[in-house]
Amino acid sequence: MTHLLDAPEAFAEQALQGFCDIHARLVRPTPGGVLRATLTPAGKVAVVIGGGSGHYPAFAGYVGPGFADGAVAGDVFASPSTRLVHDVAARAHRGGGILLGFGNYAGDVLNFGAAAERLRSEGIDVRVLPVTDDVASAAADEIARRRGVAGDVAVFKIAGAAAEAGLDLDAVERVARAANDRTRSFGVAFGGCTLPGAAGPLFTVPDGQMGIGLGIHGEPGVGESPILPASALAGLLVRRLLAEAPEGGAARVGVILNGLGSTKQEELFVLWVAVAAELRQAGLTAVAPLVGEYVTSLDMEGCSLTLTWLDTELEEFWLAPCDTVALRIGAVGEAIEAPQDAAETTEPESDAWPAATPDSRASGAIIAAGFASMAAALKEAEAELGRIDAQAGDGDHGQGMARGSAAAAAAAQAASAAGAGAASVLAAAANAWADRAGGTSGAIWGLGLLAASRALSDGARVTADQVRLAAQQGLESVMGLGGAKPGDKTLVDAFAPFVAALSAEIEAGRGLAAAWRHAADVAQTAAADTARLLPKLGRARPLAERSLGHPDAGAVSFALCTRVMSDLQGETHV
Amino acid sequence: MTHLLDAPEAFAEQALQGFCDIHARLVRPTPGGVLRATLTPAGKVAVVIGGGSGHYPAFAGYVGPGFADGAVAGDVFASPSTRLVHDVAARAHRGGGILLGFGNYAGDVLNFGAAAERLRSEGIDVRVLPVTDDVASAAADEIARRRGVAGDVAVFKIAGAAAEAGLDLDAVERVARAANDRTRSFGVAFGGCTLPGAAGPLFTVPDGQMGIGLGIHGEPGVGESPILPASALAGLLVRRLLAEAPEGGAARVGVILNGLGSTKQEELFVLWVAVAAELRQAGLTAVAPLVGEYVTSLDMEGCSLTLTWLDTELEEFWLAPCDTVALRIGAVGEAIEAPQDAAETTEPESDAWPAATPDSRASGAIIAAGFASMAAALKEAEAELGRIDAQAGDGDHGQGMARGSAAAAAAAQAASAAGAGAASVLAAAANAWADRAGGTSGAIWGLGLLAASRALSDGARVTADQVRLAAQQGLESVMGLGGAKPGDKTLVDAFAPFVAALSAEIEAGRGLAAAWRHAADVAQTAAADTARLLPKLGRARPLAERSLGHPDAGAVSFALCTRVMSDLQGETHV
Repeated sequence: MTHLLDAPEAFAEQALQGFCDIHARLVRPTPGGVLRATLTPAGKVAVVIGGGSGHYPAFAGYVGPGFADGAVAGDVFASPSTRLVHDVAARAHRGGGILLGFGNYAGDVLNFGAAAERLRSEGIDVRVLPVTDDVASAAADEIARRRGVAGDVAVFKIAGAAAEAGLDLDAVERVARAANDRTRSFGVAFGGCTLPGAAGPLFTVPDGQMGIGLGIHGEPGVGESPILPASALAGLLVRRLLAEAPEGGAARVGVILNGLGSTKQEELFVLWVAVAAELRQAGLTAVAPLVGEYVTSLDMEGCSLTLTWLDTELEEFWLAPCDTVALRIGAVGEAIEAPQDAAETTEPESDAWPAATPDSRASGAIIAAGFASMAAALKEAEAELGRIDAQAGDGDHGQGMARGSAAAAAAAQAASAAGAGAASVLAAAANAWADRAGGTSGAIWGLGLLAASRALSDGARVTADQVRLAAQQGLESVMGLGGAKPGDKTLVDAFAPFVAALSAEIEAGRGLAAAWRHAADVAQTAAADTARLLPKLGRARPLAERSLGHPDAGAVSFALCTRVMSDLQGETHV
Repeated sequence: MTHLLDAPEAFAEQALQGFCDIHARLVRPTPGGVLRATLTPAGKVAVVIGGGSGHYPAFAGYVGPGFADGAVAGDVFASPSTRLVHDVAARAHRGGGILLGFGNYAGDVLNFGAAAERLRSEGIDVRVLPVTDDVASAAADEIARRRGVAGDVAVFKIAGAAAEAGLDLDAVERVARAANDRTRSFGVAFGGCTLPGAAGPLFTVPDGQMGIGLGIHGEPGVGESPILPASALAGLLVRRLLAEAPEGGAARVGVILNGLGSTKQEELFVLWVAVAAELRQAGLTAVAPLVGEYVTSLDMEGCSLTLTWLDTELEEFWLAPCDTVALRIGAVGEAIEAPQDAAETTEPESDAWPAATPDSRASGAIIAAGFASMAAALKEAEAELGRIDAQAGDGDHGQGMARGSAAAAAAAQAASAAGAGAASVLAAAANAWADRAGGTSGAIWGLGLLAASRALSDGARVTADQVRLAAQQGLESVMGLGGAKPGDKTLVDAFAPFVAALSAEIEAGRGLAAAWRHAADVAQTAAADTARLLPKLGRARPLAERSLGHPDAGAVSFALCTRVMSDLQGETHV
């Protein structure tokens, strides 16, 4: 259980605040993450890493000389927003370009990818490195679909050392990709973790059993078995990794034996004795093995083994000195405190709004009221959406939707009160959602709403045809961005039928309120139907079948939002 | 749950082996513990710390330059044996005397105290420092009865720094006592820990509740309350410690916010934000606060706060550089690998036995057979004895008795096979019990049996009168050593009536077998009766009352042993 907290929604932020206070020698807080407190040479490649919170010491614990330059921290188990990734990376940049490192999760891929685009548009050279070490998360012929787990630390450590050694961005990227290509992890879980404020665990493992290959958020693994003695478990972990050895192999391996939270150091030491024997028997030399908590999952019970098959270059960087909270190797030379930059700790100013007509402002006020209703409904549904999401995903959907819609409602209200028109109010809501929600849904809703806002204007009242167009543009943006098609068990399964029904009704001359109400009914039916869809995911993830009987959380929340807006429109007649 | 293990009885030893393998830069294994792997100047005071295992990084994680010179590791939650403490300390000694640091638990006090006596008899100056920081474990006017918890780390860190600075033994002892006098801890627990191999937790805390002031082995605390939000908990912890501020106070405090196992770093960081605010409000400056896992209790859920009120000297040593696995502060200068001493890793040779008559050898064989039966019975009763002990103590009694009797049986068998007489066989069993059992019971049984052996001889068959005398001498030794009187709810409550009954029967001319059988019945009744005794402990420990309804584990195991021996004597007629 996660017991120590005040407000669940403030958990990740407060944890980071406490971390920065304790470790001021090494890190300095910045909105959305941390930066090195020590001086970094100008022109050095910046290695900026991150992902959701709840994985301490990943990722802020790895910021310091010889390792990362900055870390971005999302909410618990949720990707940081595009804007936070952008801002932390821009502040960490020292003129030598940026390597963005993250685990290969949909939300992180979206947000770090979008942040990279934005940084490039500002003239900064950026490379993205999604780590894909978890052999249980996809088959060997689909390595690019694999998740990043404790291998993150091996890959980022090596990349950080390469950057510290003065390699340029091309070379740092090459070394980092080589490290990722040669890193494999495999884990087991004995029990689930509890999200801050939740009454029970996110997932459970039956008593006496262990989940094999479970992800660090409880994502499906490859099976279950009775808990094994340490020596047998060591054999299982090592054999599974050796079967996935990269081409060319190597006789020397970097090793991380990682505890997930409630599996303690002494247990890991006991397991290490057996793992070391298995590695020796396989003819492998363990180079500077790490045994402890390196990528956790709140208080989850379990452990993972990571191997990085080293060549001469990778070994040099694996062994290079570093000085971070979670890992200290050798001596890195005298650290000089970095001068404080005011930009590190200030939030950018709020936007001013283009002039708008009274008609468009009236529509904008209705949109703002709609987001307020949506936020209230999503707050109420937060726990239920989280439960649905936890069947197949990482359980952060309810939290992300509640946080995103609340931010959107506040921003829309502020924009409307400041006299913004319909297009600007919707754009303000979209940007706030993207910036504050984090996670996959945050990126998708933010960009979808932003695309929709381009169908409106600040010069006139919103028409039914504009709403139809906005819905279509939103759908196209979401499908383009996320790569999801109908039947993939995502919000598109509700969004696409909604748009089709809305368009047909409006084209047939029905009023907007009635058309929307009908389309919302269609979306609701479709969302419920996702329980019967064959997820394409299922082919890649052997245990994803357990999600078959459950509706998709994204489709459900989409249907809920359209229903709320429908009720509102029934009252107000946009 | 503790899940990763092979054999429960090998858990502590294997964990230490894995730890030493991973951290060979800093530590070197030695039977019973670890020594620094780095060179220590001749004449430096040796700081040797220790206690039971299951508290990682206490204590082996604190060995290295600037901190401890060696650490002794008992079995899980059980004191190391006198011999192990002696051997590790003797090997760590560099000619400047030794400070032995340990938490104030009965077993540790006995074993470290006896080891100190033995080292002194070998001409080494030794001081013992039982840490007494836990304010919940006894009232303010009985500070010497308080337990040592995470304050161990503050006291040992300061003592280690004083020794490293070249202070002599008198000065190191003075500084260490000052640190202990000015250190206070208070903790809460949300859930119990599981001993390796046990099917369930050693103790439980009701769902949604927290145990206030619980010890790190689940010993009774001062109450229970619903789990508080982090900010309210911070207030509770700080207020409770401020109420116990040492005389003279101070504006600057060393701080340890300690996680007990399953309460994670991010939770501790959240709590730290609130604790830091409370300290500031109280006008205290937190000096180099430590937030993390410093003294754990396997996978126990909970945390504790430790404050050390610093003066100039204590602050200097609190901040001094150190380089250990669990704590690294500043830079300690170049470390030189210590030359390997063969004595570090070899077990002393086994003893040769004095010549014995065939009659005495026959009695010795019967004694050896008795220990074999006793070991089998204690193995069978291990879990039940642990459960009884966990009602009031740390739950290690079953484990300690099983381990001690097994070692005693093996040693007695070996001695008997090598031709030893009755006195030598019993002495061999006694020494093996003391050396291998660890814990309070190990020290007491070992010394009690050794005292008993002095009533026998290697020159003749054992007589009934010798058995009577042996039992009396054993009882006197146990009462003298442990300070327990009848009614204190210890094994004396069964042992004393046993000796009285045995003596009366034998003096009345009954045969040994019948007398013993009767005395064993008396012991059994007395052991059951301990459930109704008012424990003296109860006056000092507010929650010890919960043990009132339960028999004392030491009395029960004593009765069991006499019963087993009684059956054997019935068959063989010593």
